[in-house]
Amino acid sequence: MSVTAPRGFRAAGTAAGLKPSGNPDVALVVNDGPADAAAGVFTRNRVQAAPVLWTRQALADGRLRAVVLNSGGANACTGPAGFADTHATAEHVASALSIGAGDVAVCSTGLIGVRLPMDLLLPGVTKAVAGLSTGAGGAEAAEAIRTTDTVAKTAVRTSTATPGVIVGAMGKGAAMLAPSLATMLVVVTTDAVADAATLDRAVREASRVSFERVDSDGCLSTNDTVLLLASGASGVALPEAELTDLVAEVCTDLAQQMLGDAEGSTKTIAIQVVGAASEADGLEVARSVARNNLLKCALYGNDPNWGRVLAAVGTTQAAFEPDALDVSMNGVQVCRAGAPGEDRDLVDLSARRIDILIDLHVGGEEVTVWTNDLTDGYVHENSAYST
Amino acid sequence: MSVTAPRGFRAAGTAAGLKPSGNPDVALVVNDGPADAAAGVFTRNRVQAAPVLWTRQALADGRLRAVVLNSGGANACTGPAGFADTHATAEHVASALSIGAGDVAVCSTGLIGVRLPMDLLLPGVTKAVAGLSTGAGGAEAAEAIRTTDTVAKTAVRTSTATPGVIVGAMGKGAAMLAPSLATMLVVVTTDAVADAATLDRAVREASRVSFERVDSDGCLSTNDTVLLLASGASGVALPEAELTDLVAEVCTDLAQQMLGDAEGSTKTIAIQVVGAASEADGLEVARSVARNNLLKCALYGNDPNWGRVLAAVGTTQAAFEPDALDVSMNGVQVCRAGAPGEDRDLVDLSARRIDILIDLHVGGEEVTVWTNDLTDGYVHENSAYST
Repeated sequence: MSVTAPRGFRAAGTAAGLKPSGNPDVALVVNDGPADAAAGVFTRNRVQAAPVLWTRQALADGRLRAVVLNSGGANACTGPAGFADTHATAEHVASALSIGAGDVAVCSTGLIGVRLPMDLLLPGVTKAVAGLSTGAGGAEAAEAIRTTDTVAKTAVRTSTATPGVIVGAMGKGAAMLAPSLATMLVVVTTDAVADAATLDRAVREASRVSFERVDSDGCLSTNDTVLLLASGASGVALPEAELTDLVAEVCTDLAQQMLGDAEGSTKTIAIQVVGAASEADGLEVARSVARNNLLKCALYGNDPNWGRVLAAVGTTQAAFEPDALDVSMNGVQVCRAGAPGEDRDLVDLSARRIDILIDLHVGGEEVTVWTNDLTDGYVHENSAYST
Repeated sequence: MSVTAPRGFRAAGTAAGLKPSGNPDVALVVNDGPADAAAGVFTRNRVQAAPVLWTRQALADGRLRAVVLNSGGANACTGPAGFADTHATAEHVASALSIGAGDVAVCSTGLIGVRLPMDLLLPGVTKAVAGLSTGAGGAEAAEAIRTTDTVAKTAVRTSTATPGVIVGAMGKGAAMLAPSLATMLVVVTTDAVADAATLDRAVREASRVSFERVDSDGCLSTNDTVLLLASGASGVALPEAELTDLVAEVCTDLAQQMLGDAEGSTKTIAIQVVGAASEADGLEVARSVARNNLLKCALYGNDPNWGRVLAAVGTTQAAFEPDALDVSMNGVQVCRAGAPGEDRDLVDLSARRIDILIDLHVGGEEVTVWTNDLTDGYVHENSAYST
């Protein structure tokens, strides 16, 4: 059901011909209200794609009636002409739906530095408008935003403490999963009654504990966008904490799906740092480990090379003493006080899931960052992506 | 000739059995004087191997008479016992040469987190002492410090402006080539007359413009060491600038050899940033590009994916405007003012050497950082390294 699970939303997915494969590449999500509050978070990359620049403006008033998304081209690094393309796309949607262009968010994903074929995209948008539905449209939209994703990614939750609210979501992202956000587009919908300020806090907190804790390849995209739209169609206003938890749940679910589908990956790796002096210290350490190519290759080879964990920790400015560091891999404490602990041969890395636990022995903060292994599959996929 | 090219030095390389292959794994360099001034630079990793901790102490008085090096084990993350092993190795060398252990530097390279087999290493050191020579010893020593290096790396220069001085060097390093220094051990010798303070300035400046401008895989080693020893045997005291230039020349030569031999690499990539507001800005931008896995995979696939260059630049805090960025690849300006420039199909990436030029259009500073592509060969080598 994806984004159409909550009441008040229609969606569609269609093939406009942007992808040489002929697969679906245009998605549309429409909020039929009665309310149209919305919020979003965006990539922290300073080089931002035209649709990101546009959607930031569209969200300034805390309202959105529609989101149009395309795969098959990122419309990033395309200059003023690229921005005009995004603007024209929003106008086209607005005209077809009889709403204002300023209430239309635009998201794009695909190759950077190439203009979108507007002669294909706009007719595709028209087709998407015609295909809007409250049922299958949600799944079709999720399908249409895939790039290298091998599967469509959706999540739905219903409120329990205060019954009556549904949160639905779709997302895409399988590489450039990075520090702030993944290369990903995510649309979360809900029929809760909520104002834009509440949604803004909810989407920021949900992203902080989900997408921002994923660091698949350390690369930060130009197009990352997470949008949260509320139709109010349930008539129920959840307590803010409850709404935030629901949104965080669907975001965490999508983040885990992205990890499981990361390009070329064979391992999903949880890097848990405990005993940190601060959350910032824990994050710096966990991200440094998550980005260490040598460790990621070793884990691909089922090699419990904990020395590479310590070498990565040592590059940070976090508070710790090298001779106090403990490291466990899948429950085996291979490093104790910065020196060899239990026999590394006891570590079984054959399953997809790998748990690395790093104890800094300084404070009481802990944080987990998720990453993947670095494989020849990743190299192959990314050396052949645009050609 | 390597480190024995300058007068006053003997060296040796021998097989102690640390490597399962039976290849040479112990090297010794001895400064027979008359002088024994020395200086060094070390990894900035906060997790430092026992030999690094030892050699820092040994260098505190600006004097060294010998350097003993082993491959086949990094003696990093080995705790107090590992430090005792390094101490015992220095004592063993000192005893055999009738010098003080505090005048013996120790360098180790290989797997982290494993104790050295001292029962093999010490007899190997004895054998190396017996094999010291002013001739072939230099080449043998360079051979013995190889790990994944496919070739031994040496460089020699003679002074011309002020004739009479020779600088020789050997180095190893083929991965973990990183921000401060590569995973590398380098010994530079000279028969110039120079005090420790002069050598210290020379080796820092030389490293800054050579090894510190190489960033092969973003990984910072626990063992990086660059030592500079002066025997004074030429009787010639060069002007400091001349000595520094000579040392920088051999270091740059070795750095380029390391790049050419980087694990699994098929490309040597020069990332030149011009128009930077400061050298720090230029370095931040160049390093961010050098560490972008997606770009490095694209270049492996001969794909001039300049969008990934901009995405990497955008993650930095350097001064620039996204819509003013220019990028050229091998002379073709594929990105102009942050948007598509010349046709990317004009870029020929088939040769090993690739030149990326990034113009930030802010100031007058420029800097070049060197890196390699990311290949399935790198993944294979580093997923199978310790097993």
